[in-house]
Amino acid sequence: MPTPLVLDTQAQDLLFREARTANTYTDEPVSDETVQAVYDLIKYAPTAFNLQSMRVVLVRSDDARERLVSHLVDSNQDKTRNAPLVAILAADLEFHEELPRVFPVFPELKDAVFADDEIRDRAARSNATLQLGYFIMGLRAAGLAAGPMVGFDGEAIDKEFFGDGKHSVIAVVNIGKPGENAWFPRLPRLDYDEVFTTV
Amino acid sequence: MPTPLVLDTQAQDLLFREARTANTYTDEPVSDETVQAVYDLIKYAPTAFNLQSMRVVLVRSDDARERLVSHLVDSNQDKTRNAPLVAILAADLEFHEELPRVFPVFPELKDAVFADDEIRDRAARSNATLQLGYFIMGLRAAGLAAGPMVGFDGEAIDKEFFGDGKHSVIAVVNIGKPGENAWFPRLPRLDYDEVFTTV
Repeated sequence: MPTPLVLDTQAQDLLFREARTANTYTDEPVSDETVQAVYDLIKYAPTAFNLQSMRVVLVRSDDARERLVSHLVDSNQDKTRNAPLVAILAADLEFHEELPRVFPVFPELKDAVFADDEIRDRAARSNATLQLGYFIMGLRAAGLAAGPMVGFDGEAIDKEFFGDGKHSVIAVVNIGKPGENAWFPRLPRLDYDEVFTTV
Repeated sequence: MPTPLVLDTQAQDLLFREARTANTYTDEPVSDETVQAVYDLIKYAPTAFNLQSMRVVLVRSDDARERLVSHLVDSNQDKTRNAPLVAILAADLEFHEELPRVFPVFPELKDAVFADDEIRDRAARSNATLQLGYFIMGLRAAGLAAGPMVGFDGEAIDKEFFGDGKHSVIAVVNIGKPGENAWFPRLPRLDYDEVFTTV
């Protein structure tokens, strides 16, 4: 039976089936050019009202890396210490300042909807999380493994790396080529019938 | 200069550059086999602790579609009325019941971390949102256009389609082949330097 998928098998494997969350990495560096190519691909993926709330800090200095590691849970510290590149992904809680430019078709949106702190906060986090998913796919598209983590002291990271009260970290992502024993055995996925119902 | 991307150009276009959020669709139906193939691809993409909180209701009957349409904001109603398939994506707020099976390496997780309602709620929503991003990519991998929407009365949809207080809708996604005038002009994306900083 022909597959309903149009995406070629090699791309399916690269992005989904063979890609894995890595726990160790080789020493091969990850350049700014590579990260930029990843962003230039994934920036087109959709967000609500095109609001694009994801912001990323690339941790490149030894000093910044040690400061970040100190805010991670113990079991995540070595992974981040040894990855060639580490990215802090955050939600920009004041993304609405850019809305008149990125969503010019409805200029009232900024004040009509997103003046409300709770609505804005929820939209900032959920859309940055969507973009985290795209970012993971984009890194895989560059032949890299991503190791996204949420085991950290978020308030401490916000203060240490942003300090403006306007950003909230949603994930720390280790990035690089997978090293020796990079992954655990794959864990079970839910069956189609456990996830999908029809009405 | 060679691109740092490994993913072939055709796949890049299919998933990111040429794919667009559609507002109109052709009549061509979207089969359960296609949806299952999409899920069987994207189920491998990562969630925190493999928790897989996304649940999906495929709206296929006329009656269910009209009930859904009645809870959408006016500007979304026609899109959902005319799409060949509509999916309601929700977060399973009691995903932790499955954790001992899907994350057997740390059986304490269910009670040690996710007994806390607030932590569980946040994890349910953020990981279902990640999976929404993967689902959009998966639909595109099947040559389909996705039209994700958040303009609706969420409480009404939860009550109408789940009614158990254990699910919270995060998006309604129209699905199909793009029709005539399917999309608006592409909106501006943020520049790399607006999103990424280095420390």
